[in-house]
Amino acid sequence: MALSPLDSMLWSGLFGDADMAALVSDEAEIAAMIEVERALARAEAAAGVIPPAAGKAIDRGLANLSLDPLSLARGTASAGVPVPALVASLRAHLPEAAAHWLHWGATSQDILDGGAVLRLLRATALLQDRLAALLDRLDQQARAHAATPMAARTRSQIATPIPFGLRIANWAAPLIMLESRLPEVCRTLGRVQLGGASGANAVLGAKAQTVAEALAWELGLAPAPPWGTARVGMAELGAWAAQLSAALGRIGGDLILMGRSEAGEAAAGQGGGSSTMPQKQNPVAAEAMVTLGRMAGAHAGALNGAVLHGEERDATAWALEWMALPPLIVGAGAGLRLAWPLIDTLRPDPAAMRRMLDLGGGAVHAEAAAFALARHMPRAEAARLVAEAAREVGAPLAKAIANRTDAPVDWAKVTDLEPTMDAGAATIEAIFAERSARPRLPEC
Amino acid sequence: MALSPLDSMLWSGLFGDADMAALVSDEAEIAAMIEVERALARAEAAAGVIPPAAGKAIDRGLANLSLDPLSLARGTASAGVPVPALVASLRAHLPEAAAHWLHWGATSQDILDGGAVLRLLRATALLQDRLAALLDRLDQQARAHAATPMAARTRSQIATPIPFGLRIANWAAPLIMLESRLPEVCRTLGRVQLGGASGANAVLGAKAQTVAEALAWELGLAPAPPWGTARVGMAELGAWAAQLSAALGRIGGDLILMGRSEAGEAAAGQGGGSSTMPQKQNPVAAEAMVTLGRMAGAHAGALNGAVLHGEERDATAWALEWMALPPLIVGAGAGLRLAWPLIDTLRPDPAAMRRMLDLGGGAVHAEAAAFALARHMPRAEAARLVAEAAREVGAPLAKAIANRTDAPVDWAKVTDLEPTMDAGAATIEAIFAERSARPRLPEC
Amino acid sequence: MALSPLDSMLWSGLFGDADMAALVSDEAEIAAMIEVERALARAEAAAGVIPPAAGKAIDRGLANLSLDPLSLARGTASAGVPVPALVASLRAHLPEAAAHWLHWGATSQDILDGGAVLRLLRATALLQDRLAALLDRLDQQARAHAATPMAARTRSQIATPIPFGLRIANWAAPLIMLESRLPEVCRTLGRVQLGGASGANAVLGAKAQTVAEALAWELGLAPAPPWGTARVGMAELGAWAAQLSAALGRIGGDLILMGRSEAGEAAAGQGGGSSTMPQKQNPVAAEAMVTLGRMAGAHAGALNGAVLHGEERDATAWALEWMALPPLIVGAGAGLRLAWPLIDTLRPDPAAMRRMLDLGGGAVHAEAAAFALARHMPRAEAARLVAEAAREVGAPLAKAIANRTDAPVDWAKVTDLEPTMDAGAATIEAIFAERSARPRLPEC
Amino acid sequence: MALSPLDSMLWSGLFGDADMAALVSDEAEIAAMIEVERALARAEAAAGVIPPAAGKAIDRGLANLSLDPLSLARGTASAGVPVPALVASLRAHLPEAAAHWLHWGATSQDILDGGAVLRLLRATALLQDRLAALLDRLDQQARAHAATPMAARTRSQIATPIPFGLRIANWAAPLIMLESRLPEVCRTLGRVQLGGASGANAVLGAKAQTVAEALAWELGLAPAPPWGTARVGMAELGAWAAQLSAALGRIGGDLILMGRSEAGEAAAGQGGGSSTMPQKQNPVAAEAMVTLGRMAGAHAGALNGAVLHGEERDATAWALEWMALPPLIVGAGAGLRLAWPLIDTLRPDPAAMRRMLDLGGGAVHAEAAAFALARHMPRAEAARLVAEAAREVGAPLAKAIANRTDAPVDWAKVTDLEPTMDAGAATIEAIFAERSARPRLPEC
Repeated sequence: MALSPLDSMLWSGLFGDADMAALVSDEAEIAAMIEVERALARAEAAAGVIPPAAGKAIDRGLANLSLDPLSLARGTASAGVPVPALVASLRAHLPEAAAHWLHWGATSQDILDGGAVLRLLRATALLQDRLAALLDRLDQQARAHAATPMAARTRSQIATPIPFGLRIANWAAPLIMLESRLPEVCRTLGRVQLGGASGANAVLGAKAQTVAEALAWELGLAPAPPWGTARVGMAELGAWAAQLSAALGRIGGDLILMGRSEAGEAAAGQGGGSSTMPQKQNPVAAEAMVTLGRMAGAHAGALNGAVLHGEERDATAWALEWMALPPLIVGAGAGLRLAWPLIDTLRPDPAAMRRMLDLGGGAVHAEAAAFALARHMPRAEAARLVAEAAREVGAPLAKAIANRTDAPVDWAKVTDLEPTMDAGAATIEAIFAERSARPRLPEC
Repeated sequence: MALSPLDSMLWSGLFGDADMAALVSDEAEIAAMIEVERALARAEAAAGVIPPAAGKAIDRGLANLSLDPLSLARGTASAGVPVPALVASLRAHLPEAAAHWLHWGATSQDILDGGAVLRLLRATALLQDRLAALLDRLDQQARAHAATPMAARTRSQIATPIPFGLRIANWAAPLIMLESRLPEVCRTLGRVQLGGASGANAVLGAKAQTVAEALAWELGLAPAPPWGTARVGMAELGAWAAQLSAALGRIGGDLILMGRSEAGEAAAGQGGGSSTMPQKQNPVAAEAMVTLGRMAGAHAGALNGAVLHGEERDATAWALEWMALPPLIVGAGAGLRLAWPLIDTLRPDPAAMRRMLDLGGGAVHAEAAAFALARHMPRAEAARLVAEAAREVGAPLAKAIANRTDAPVDWAKVTDLEPTMDAGAATIEAIFAERSARPRLPEC
Repeated sequence: MALSPLDSMLWSGLFGDADMAALVSDEAEIAAMIEVERALARAEAAAGVIPPAAGKAIDRGLANLSLDPLSLARGTASAGVPVPALVASLRAHLPEAAAHWLHWGATSQDILDGGAVLRLLRATALLQDRLAALLDRLDQQARAHAATPMAARTRSQIATPIPFGLRIANWAAPLIMLESRLPEVCRTLGRVQLGGASGANAVLGAKAQTVAEALAWELGLAPAPPWGTARVGMAELGAWAAQLSAALGRIGGDLILMGRSEAGEAAAGQGGGSSTMPQKQNPVAAEAMVTLGRMAGAHAGALNGAVLHGEERDATAWALEWMALPPLIVGAGAGLRLAWPLIDTLRPDPAAMRRMLDLGGGAVHAEAAAFALARHMPRAEAARLVAEAAREVGAPLAKAIANRTDAPVDWAKVTDLEPTMDAGAATIEAIFAERSARPRLPEC
Repeated sequence: MALSPLDSMLWSGLFGDADMAALVSDEAEIAAMIEVERALARAEAAAGVIPPAAGKAIDRGLANLSLDPLSLARGTASAGVPVPALVASLRAHLPEAAAHWLHWGATSQDILDGGAVLRLLRATALLQDRLAALLDRLDQQARAHAATPMAARTRSQIATPIPFGLRIANWAAPLIMLESRLPEVCRTLGRVQLGGASGANAVLGAKAQTVAEALAWELGLAPAPPWGTARVGMAELGAWAAQLSAALGRIGGDLILMGRSEAGEAAAGQGGGSSTMPQKQNPVAAEAMVTLGRMAGAHAGALNGAVLHGEERDATAWALEWMALPPLIVGAGAGLRLAWPLIDTLRPDPAAMRRMLDLGGGAVHAEAAAFALARHMPRAEAARLVAEAAREVGAPLAKAIANRTDAPVDWAKVTDLEPTMDAGAATIEAIFAERSARPRLPEC
């Protein structure tokens, strides 16, 4: 147990993600806030709110500055946010004439939220790339296994035959929906925040909108009215990330089931060893994906509390974002990082799958048998007859049925897997067509 | 304590919503499932999968049928879903020739999910209407109070002056974002579900896509590949509803604070009485909005678990939707129901607001004072001077500052509320412009 | 989807529990509150706070009264609690002289919390009985199958041999801990609540403690200072119920895995049918146990928010209990109700278990083999050798090892299951000894 | 936003706790696991399972060893737990003869869980000390302010007079309950874990119980059967910590309300500054306590999922503990750390409290007035009359009532605060008596 297995040295190789973690590090937070202060100075200089020379001096003076997080720690603990200490520190790095104009008309939240948005957008861009790559690979794998028959499981029991590729396509289906939604998530998030002390930009007054637009332009964000108390963008990103983690966790869960000793229908990646059992090949990465998927719901639920903001700024709600959103982002990143090599190295075992199709005398064909019989008798009677036959232990299902009826059914056709594979292949096609047929998505 | 205060007779007048509850009743569930079976029969008849006469007989035979939920209870407990019992019961209401073709190629999930989607879309349409009406009224109220000065509170403390209308506009801001997103939520949700036993439509085979498209048309849904294991649409609706409840809870929270005995800055609705304290006017509706907002996060978190589905159907995950999504929908409905009369009857007390502006000798003007002083001295010095003056108990802030400096500041201008009201009014304008300037949203 | 599948007519046969639901019904709530008002009148008469005749008249006059919840619905919605309307209604059923003294010195919360405690204690008593019965049966089953070898699974993979009885004992282990803790949970909960308007019993004054003690005695509760804002007792009951549901969900999860078509190691109860697949025997009850276990965490998390109370009464926090605690109680009841017949009818399939022990050439014996080899070579070398042999597909493990070394190991002894069964039986014994050896637990 | 504000350099001064964080560091985890391996060797040597010399060599050889977490990172990511890599690394530090006997008969979980228990018990001992100190100080403060009248607030509105000390005692009440429960939590947690590969101790066989008892003695834990899949102890600790955080959050919430500019009834600690508003004294520590209290519920909810374990070891469930339990422990520590100086420096403002008692013409006396009047008229009439008077804006309540009735009430007595203070003082006494009167609690 480390405080967070997502970033402890010992555990983060399993549950963490270095790229994402770098974006939610103290260093990245400070750098992004400096970026916002510089952009604000440029924007205010351009708008004639502060002297051009001051704008330039601030922009240049802070250009390569990096501050030790520890130097702002005491100030953060005292003020509840790092910004007062940061601003004081930045002023000390500037000539007095420029220092005077730093942070002009802004409030702590403008800087903290602005910096967070920049970093979160970088994180979502990374997630977007990884998700696209994973979907490309899922598409290939689904098509590669579109004619590999396996026994579907519904409610944990053998259902009917499907191609393995359909299961893969079903893993992709929620990810395709999430990929489609991401640009809107980024659009909602990528809005400039400039409200001043109480969200009315009282100091900037009539120039507020001009400055906000210039700041948006400088930071590559969309212009927007102040949203300091409207935390829907953050909550929506968190909800999206939680759904992503859960959708990835499902792949992990299915891989665990397929790789169980008694099934062995598919393997992926490298199994993990045990400290005492030499034969073990534990599905470590798949398990981590499941845990990350489960944990994400709790964080998304907590994050929703930040939408229940108060008055013009409510730190009790706001701080929920600081606790719940970073693990959602890093967890989603870790889920994608873990998923890629598993999907990339997916190795079905067609013989094992075939054994499952033969279980219970071919119980997997019961639905087809019932429909075939139903051409010769009422459906309820057909179903009853098949159910009875299916309970006859050990006998091949078709034979057990034939013993019970002389309905002229072509049993070879009933158990022929080809039509099922065709139906499955068409569904695979339809699932990925949702992705290939849509217009190109904007980047985050 | 009732099992659910959202639908108990005793409590639902406070926490529930009759319109929403009607959509998630047993009766509505059964009716919607019958609607899907009828539409499926029409679609399959049109596609030539079942005989036209059978399609017609099913459609007509079930047209006015309503079944007692109790009659399906035992079957539901046994099968885990009501569909097998429902289908058996429907067959008993049909001539045998038609009964034979009922539910052809479908599986329980097609019917249950299909019916759920129909009801959820009706619920979201209602939420959409109520949200639009609430936003219209918030817009009016924000503008009506755009020149009513009050003291903003950040981190619970007096901050700077804002118009009361800006606080109202800030209540609206997250709701406007949620309103914008709703059509996409409905679009994701409003997709036809037809997958058959294992999601491959093996029984319908080559006709599957034709039937699915016809079924979509019959039900007013979008055509789509089977999504039985891709629960993102449900999760996203739940996340949206949770954010809505939280955004409404925030209005409740602010109303509670404004209505506290020591503030009395605004009243809304009718207060509730006490069993022993005759003077009490408790903010009962506002409190309920807060609780619904807080509870919603937990349900949204649980709902995320349904995205972590398993194999071709996983009832352990699926059933999380049945537990978590209805209270989210009904809770969001209740939140809107409670919010309307509060917003409609919002009664600010300008005199009380003025008293808050005068607290601490006018501490609310400290930022303006510091910026005014900063024209005559370095900012840090200005801020220090004002902070010192602000700690001088009892004295008017401007006077306490003037005692400390001879900087030629026009203190009347510093404490003039008009420019602040103008800045606030512009922000109000900008917030609602996001709503008025956007293209008309499609209906759910 | 019903508003709550725990109490809808259609769904509650699966997810609900009639006994528990009766205790959290509107009717039970009203009855319990009347019980508290009557007991209060008796206590206050005994303490000389109200006239003896009034006490008697209230006690008798309300003795057989039952009120329609609907008649209190409007008052509940208006006051936020049913008590003001209830008290008004009760007064109308009493002679004026008695009505005058009804609810003397009490506040709504005293009555509502008091009634809740009475009902919750009855619920816990039921849970206690059911849990004891389930543990008795688990004990029997564990011992009955203490010599039935099966392959343990760790991290989803075949581990080492254990008796099936040990798995059953491990199901019991957390339940035994929960059973031990329940009396303390009940003790914390079963405290009288009498605080008056603000928790200081200002009306009762010097008589407050005497009345509270008499009220406690009348209601069978422990005397206590007012705890209206100290919600730890409720939270702890909820946490306990959530852990119980999760511990039961685990049994469900294991039964699902053991009953999968490819394992078939054990069956329990009756499987559920499908609307289209005649062969299906879905583990419906076990699935419901899993879902109830998962859902419980979210409710327990929300319930914790009620501990974060405010001032002398905070309805925004208090109402979280009304939403989160009843489903925890009813869900725990449902879990126990579902578990009993499954445990009662547990049917292992020793032949199927044996097949699992033989999987991978007897990979289940790898640890034993490594320890046997380690008597003749360094452990790391032994483990490496066994791991290598285990990867040799198809060969019996012992043989594959013997091909690699001439260490004089008695392979028959390595694969002898008897010592393992003995070790397992000793562990079973030790697990249940924790229950049989402890002093008799007090009843709730 | 840092990955975890509980341990980032920038933020942990606010939300973290250095003492607790040290106990859940990678270094502490490794050290505790080594401690368990050494104790196991000693225990096995004592039990005659491994040679005495090997036991001694392991114990001494690892005595002062500390390993770099990074050196075990790759192995942890591969095996899913650090133990295989740790054991390999420890073996490399031992002579071969001793290395052979290291970790004899144990499995990874024995070491990981064992080490976790040791660290968690140290953490709870710290929490216990801090909680006791906080309660001592709350006791002093409650008594110090037992005669300081303030207006109670129920449902956010002025209720009746209470002493400020009663509010303080009510802060303590749930903490006293939690303090009482802690020894039982520690007792449940502090059990030795030794199960071997599948929880049956197959390798140790007949010596298993002897070794387990010796190991328990070595580690200062209670002997117990293996509990590797019975996660109730962890869940209960988490639930306890979550309730503690929420109970502390409530103190924070009340302090925020009392310190609002319009109330100013009490101050505590030092306020935090703003980057733009010089007058600000933000209640930063109190806010952090609220957020930690809210966040804790989500983590406790997630932790419950670990109780829903699977088979003989389920890493998907187990890992939920690693993610959810450390922030609960550290968050509880941070809550206590933040609470202490606030309680220690609590500064009520009796004049401000008096102003609240006078609000609305003394509405706080309405209940007393109604009971006084009820001696001369029916209660309902008395309540109606007082309610009417209370709505008369501006008038002193007693006068407004007297205008409406000639009932011979001594109004000075009605508004006399002394009896109320006495009642409050008695309640304060009773609340702390629960603590002082109970037997001395065992230490964790």
